[in-house]
Amino acid sequence: MRVATYASHSALQILKGAKEEGFETVAFGKSRVKPLYTKYFPVADHFIEGTYPEERLLELNAVVIPTGSFVAHLGIELVERMRVPYYGNKEVLKWESDRSLERKWLEKAGLRLPRVYEDPDDIDGPVIVKPHGAKGGKGYFLAKDPEDFWRKAERLGVRDKDGLGGVQIQEYVLGVPVYPHYFYSKLNRELELMSIDRRYESNADAIGRIPAKEQLDLEFGTNYTVIGNIPIVLRESLLMDVIEAGERTVKAAEELVGGLWGPFCLEGVFTEELEFVVFEVSARIVAGTNPFVHGSPYSWLRYDKPVSTGRRIAMELRQALEEDRLGEVLT
Amino acid sequence: MRVATYASHSALQILKGAKEEGFETVAFGKSRVKPLYTKYFPVADHFIEGTYPEERLLELNAVVIPTGSFVAHLGIELVERMRVPYYGNKEVLKWESDRSLERKWLEKAGLRLPRVYEDPDDIDGPVIVKPHGAKGGKGYFLAKDPEDFWRKAERLGVRDKDGLGGVQIQEYVLGVPVYPHYFYSKLNRELELMSIDRRYESNADAIGRIPAKEQLDLEFGTNYTVIGNIPIVLRESLLMDVIEAGERTVKAAEELVGGLWGPFCLEGVFTEELEFVVFEVSARIVAGTNPFVHGSPYSWLRYDKPVSTGRRIAMELRQALEEDRLGEVLT
Amino acid sequence: MRVATYASHSALQILKGAKEEGFETVAFGKSRVKPLYTKYFPVADHFIEGTYPEERLLELNAVVIPTGSFVAHLGIELVERMRVPYYGNKEVLKWESDRSLERKWLEKAGLRLPRVYEDPDDIDGPVIVKPHGAKGGKGYFLAKDPEDFWRKAERLGVRDKDGLGGVQIQEYVLGVPVYPHYFYSKLNRELELMSIDRRYESNADAIGRIPAKEQLDLEFGTNYTVIGNIPIVLRESLLMDVIEAGERTVKAAEELVGGLWGPFCLEGVFTEELEFVVFEVSARIVAGTNPFVHGSPYSWLRYDKPVSTGRRIAMELRQALEEDRLGEVLT
Repeated sequence: MRVATYASHSALQILKGAKEEGFETVAFGKSRVKPLYTKYFPVADHFIEGTYPEERLLELNAVVIPTGSFVAHLGIELVERMRVPYYGNKEVLKWESDRSLERKWLEKAGLRLPRVYEDPDDIDGPVIVKPHGAKGGKGYFLAKDPEDFWRKAERLGVRDKDGLGGVQIQEYVLGVPVYPHYFYSKLNRELELMSIDRRYESNADAIGRIPAKEQLDLEFGTNYTVIGNIPIVLRESLLMDVIEAGERTVKAAEELVGGLWGPFCLEGVFTEELEFVVFEVSARIVAGTNPFVHGSPYSWLRYDKPVSTGRRIAMELRQALEEDRLGEVLT
Repeated sequence: MRVATYASHSALQILKGAKEEGFETVAFGKSRVKPLYTKYFPVADHFIEGTYPEERLLELNAVVIPTGSFVAHLGIELVERMRVPYYGNKEVLKWESDRSLERKWLEKAGLRLPRVYEDPDDIDGPVIVKPHGAKGGKGYFLAKDPEDFWRKAERLGVRDKDGLGGVQIQEYVLGVPVYPHYFYSKLNRELELMSIDRRYESNADAIGRIPAKEQLDLEFGTNYTVIGNIPIVLRESLLMDVIEAGERTVKAAEELVGGLWGPFCLEGVFTEELEFVVFEVSARIVAGTNPFVHGSPYSWLRYDKPVSTGRRIAMELRQALEEDRLGEVLT
Repeated sequence: MRVATYASHSALQILKGAKEEGFETVAFGKSRVKPLYTKYFPVADHFIEGTYPEERLLELNAVVIPTGSFVAHLGIELVERMRVPYYGNKEVLKWESDRSLERKWLEKAGLRLPRVYEDPDDIDGPVIVKPHGAKGGKGYFLAKDPEDFWRKAERLGVRDKDGLGGVQIQEYVLGVPVYPHYFYSKLNRELELMSIDRRYESNADAIGRIPAKEQLDLEFGTNYTVIGNIPIVLRESLLMDVIEAGERTVKAAEELVGGLWGPFCLEGVFTEELEFVVFEVSARIVAGTNPFVHGSPYSWLRYDKPVSTGRRIAMELRQALEEDRLGEVLT
């Protein structure tokens, strides 16, 4: 058996981790990035060009570790029909990609989510307004009350309630971004907290370095394009909240979609009242685990060797092989 | 002898470090967090419910490593009277918790502190005004001159000098937060620089991501609730300043309170003139050491093994045991 | 052969790395910092007072590893004439220190640089205006169009085009700072990506924590004095861009100045369009490598031991010694 993944996102860590657990590795993707995975960082034993070279992957007896890039490039429908074994539960893909199913899942898990306003005239606190299909936050705006909403919405061509189909109005929760990375071992029925990061976004993390006066002169808008990740640790008294949120997310997935296993992430903010408000779930490895190639402050508390999330996946596959339980973790 | 601490704050690191040095470990605290210390991160060999289960700790031959949470939950008076051996000098507790004693200590250490204004009419530069008892920065405001102060103070109900009892007026020092973590070995009479962090605060670290124009619309106040910590390193040419500040703090404590040993932290900012301005001293381990479970850039310069501040404490206890000098470090 | 460097900047890491590769080490510099390198962090086997104690260094058979502090304190002319062997290519010093030569180099490397405006009336987007000789950003201002430029320039005493000699007008590129650290092995003809950081600057990283309303009241200016460094990782799909930028910088240096080898850094920002815009090149080790004394997420992908940039330099010297090729890397 070989461990394969799409050559982007967190593939360096996944392939490195697989090698540390004794697997041969396969990267597939754009020819341009081949040197990244074979020369600059020699983590791929095989490199195959293509978004999803199914025949070659089958020949190589590969298991695919999905990442956000893999799913985005291939598309959910193709992922659901792929014949190469896939680590994780494909059933969660449609739940995660559909806003209302995702909300149903997270509500069932008892997480605190931002309120969604159907009627702008109900706005009773700060909201963030998101035009559908906006990329990376382009066109998002904040509003503080119904009057403020209508004044600003007019710029988008929204003049009355009939025009609201194109926007989502969400409670604006002021807090610092925190992304805890979990791993749920289906084999051991155990949740682990692997690491925590915050994203580094352009231009959201650039504007604060410009004095308010100059910002007003230059009229920059905001954008949340992810450029990288910064390692953080969380206040220790908040860790149980975050772990329990993870446990309930796994439990809700078991009831709704047949389970969630392997790595996942809850993306949210912590408010000044120490409340964890969750915006989204990512049901696979996130790029926020990339600072922790050599282990994180949390994985070093549990393991006496450097365990990245990528390596943790490989450890699970190794155990499944040895216990002859691969069928339980692959779909 | 067993190493014990209150189950919060930096207990994971303290207990992990103690185990690495061969000690059996004890966590005590709320039953809700028991899984954190025994299952998710198996660092506690024993878990006891309760804020301070004295009899059980005595039976277990435990030494308590104090943290901010332990002292806050138990209260200084009870800490001073506790019968379980305590690592560190209890005498510093009252100095640290009393604003004027703390100031006396830090001034004796020759540190640069923010100026305190008794009379608002003396304000000759930016000040931060802190209502007494304000939590996490709620109600703090900035003012630039006496007129600005009086205008803003009126909102708090302060209309003349008779009303000033409820507020502290402090020079506002603009700079980036820097928290160096020290360890003073009483056995070896040596100061060590263990690591450096900056805090991650809600909402102070969230507002900068909102464009100035939208901030003005939405009128957010500021708050400094600690959510986590981010590892940093300091410009190398500033390290001697920070080390000398630590040495003088230890020396002043020896003259005033019979010494300061074990971990401590100076909390301050570095200004654009490269000056380290200190706001507070924490006379024990701070949560800012939590990113460094597997060692910090600084501890790796000194040690050939991963040394967190938690482990460094355990190393000191181990040495004290072996040299039969426990009495020198416990109170 | 001994490894020597000036006692500041990134000397701790350089000397520690040299010791790990089996070299004896020498630090030279101000007597005040001697304890930093010999007591607090015992990385220097020898400490010599002085900015450049040539005779002693020759006696000790030392090779100097240059840093920004060494070059700044000694001056380019003295560096060019020094008799102690120097690791790297001295020829790049004048290219790097002269704005127009540096620009020629980076343009030849095909990097995206900020546009420079000769005529303020050509301004067609945000610009940053830099008075010559301004330290750390003092006096810099932003402008959005010619009118805005002239209004603000007047405060500096610039009233017409004859007064423009004292200022540089540069396109203002909004994006988050990203500093990739490279190592080019001349012996192996291979580029490596060692680590990535962002700087921590006073007061640029302090003002965003102040609400816009209070910033406007208090009228703080901006300053970019480096206080420290924060480790980051880059979005994996951007790594090839950054590596190719490094490769082209090395290639252009080979054509223009006889090569660039050892550590170097491209200092730039990533925009919301995912473009890497480069402001400067540093043709030697940068302090941004200091968080990675025990290896970085990137060096751990390539090496099975902790490799800082300092240690990587020592590995190159060790290889050169063993292959009898020191003459190729020293100048």
